[in-house]
Amino acid sequence: MERPVPSLKSDYPRVTRMPTRWADNDSYGHVNNVVYYSFFDTAVNRHLIESGVLDIAASPVIALVIETRCTYFSSVGFPDDLDLGLKVVKLGNSSVQYEIGLFKSTAETASAVGYFTHVYVDRQTNRPVAIPDSVRSVLSELQVAVQDKGN
Amino acid sequence: MERPVPSLKSDYPRVTRMPTRWADNDSYGHVNNVVYYSFFDTAVNRHLIESGVLDIAASPVIALVIETRCTYFSSVGFPDDLDLGLKVVKLGNSSVQYEIGLFKSTAETASAVGYFTHVYVDRQTNRPVAIPDSVRSVLSELQVAVQDKGN
Amino acid sequence: MERPVPSLKSDYPRVTRMPTRWADNDSYGHVNNVVYYSFFDTAVNRHLIESGVLDIAASPVIALVIETRCTYFSSVGFPDDLDLGLKVVKLGNSSVQYEIGLFKSTAETASAVGYFTHVYVDRQTNRPVAIPDSVRSVLSELQVAVQDKGN
Amino acid sequence: MERPVPSLKSDYPRVTRMPTRWADNDSYGHVNNVVYYSFFDTAVNRHLIESGVLDIAASPVIALVIETRCTYFSSVGFPDDLDLGLKVVKLGNSSVQYEIGLFKSTAETASAVGYFTHVYVDRQTNRPVAIPDSVRSVLSELQVAVQDKGN
Repeated sequence: MERPVPSLKSDYPRVTRMPTRWADNDSYGHVNNVVYYSFFDTAVNRHLIESGVLDIAASPVIALVIETRCTYFSSVGFPDDLDLGLKVVKLGNSSVQYEIGLFKSTAETASAVGYFTHVYVDRQTNRPVAIPDSVRSVLSELQVAVQDKGN
Repeated sequence: MERPVPSLKSDYPRVTRMPTRWADNDSYGHVNNVVYYSFFDTAVNRHLIESGVLDIAASPVIALVIETRCTYFSSVGFPDDLDLGLKVVKLGNSSVQYEIGLFKSTAETASAVGYFTHVYVDRQTNRPVAIPDSVRSVLSELQVAVQDKGN
Repeated sequence: MERPVPSLKSDYPRVTRMPTRWADNDSYGHVNNVVYYSFFDTAVNRHLIESGVLDIAASPVIALVIETRCTYFSSVGFPDDLDLGLKVVKLGNSSVQYEIGLFKSTAETASAVGYFTHVYVDRQTNRPVAIPDSVRSVLSELQVAVQDKGN
Repeated sequence: MERPVPSLKSDYPRVTRMPTRWADNDSYGHVNNVVYYSFFDTAVNRHLIESGVLDIAASPVIALVIETRCTYFSSVGFPDDLDLGLKVVKLGNSSVQYEIGLFKSTAETASAVGYFTHVYVDRQTNRPVAIPDSVRSVLSELQVAVQDKGN
């Protein structure tokens, strides 16, 4: 499998600050590889909630995670503050793939790059549905004009 | 505040085995203090589910955590297997306090002792209700005849 | 055991902002009781690191957690932003007890109040030692003149 | 990107039982996507420790995670017991890629399939080194004769 190269903070249309926690570090004194995914679904879902298109308790259509991936370039560790860059790299009929760049707040080059794929389903039946227009509109704003990295 | 003494595995009417995970360890190479509480509410809720008196998705009455506490005597660390001892130390009208002893699988003396207090509420209104009879029956079996440790 | 009353944000000499994460929520849609402790040791250790008196990798004297406790008054949930208030309520020769108030960023009254006790030990021998003067100086600044709540 | 198909429990030379925890579930009542990775590095590292080729505190050569990936087929949830199937799909000079199948204990078809890539480095310099012979011997036993799934 091709190994992505580290992205730059400027590659992402939306960047949010995220502090680390003491318990994020593992025996080697760095943020455990598992925790990166916690940053990813936080960045994605927080953006959807703040954009007004996700109500965890009540939305009749919800997004389930069907695939995630992360390439780790360099370590981060508590108490580092992190910046999470978010963009949409694939926008289909019922699914969307996000790319997330994870950066130390003081760095321009990513410490890790992740991919996170959501499929929209009916909350009752669990069957795929078209991404609602309101959501699609929010996702479109996270697409970058020139797709500079094949994935 | 009084500091409890380590309990013995034989003090508990129910003991369940629980493995640790790599991510449980923190920078000092031991299971992080936070993770102990994850063992506690797992031991409590798993017992309620296996006893047939808790359905996470559907129970009209649910238990909310109102107080937890843990005294740490000695460290444990991945890949230790742990034994969780469970007993009920206070059984009120709408609330119950559990004591949980956390042991290395190879030890008889506790590495940590925790307390965990649930109050039963109506799922819709969030108001306290009497512990349902079916639950109370399960909890009674976790009470130990002679209360040997003041708490 | 006495049940503490909710504290006020103004009771704490230091308050830090802490966002929640998607994975913090449990099946009931609220931040899981376990996660509160993750906020507590993050607030404590971050303050020590930022004050220049803790180097996780190199400090010859480290602090081990010997007791923690939390009383939960009302729920919080992702994507709430939280404020963590920190003060020192007991400062002994080798141990210190912190009180942490957990607040929604928009509230003045605590959603939860926790206690967190550290004992200082020699990193090699694990034997208790006097709190180093540099640390004691930082801790003293977290003591509040009039102890308004018995604990 | 190609989407893997669910594997079978019999595809894996080593399978270990792993219980879920209450806090593993998220707002939707299923094990959060993040937690799957916690099962993966637990399965890998536990096997290395039990095989006698990893000492977290003392090994002069350690393995760092450089890439992970997971495809989710169906949900699991606390209190499910899980089976983790482990095999090696690529064994290079300094790196190894594992495939992990995650199954309900009662199922033969995977709920999720993950990939986990370790690179061996010198603990002091962080520079890649050849996988030690003792480790390579353990990893070889996790290779399956006919590589039935391209990855």
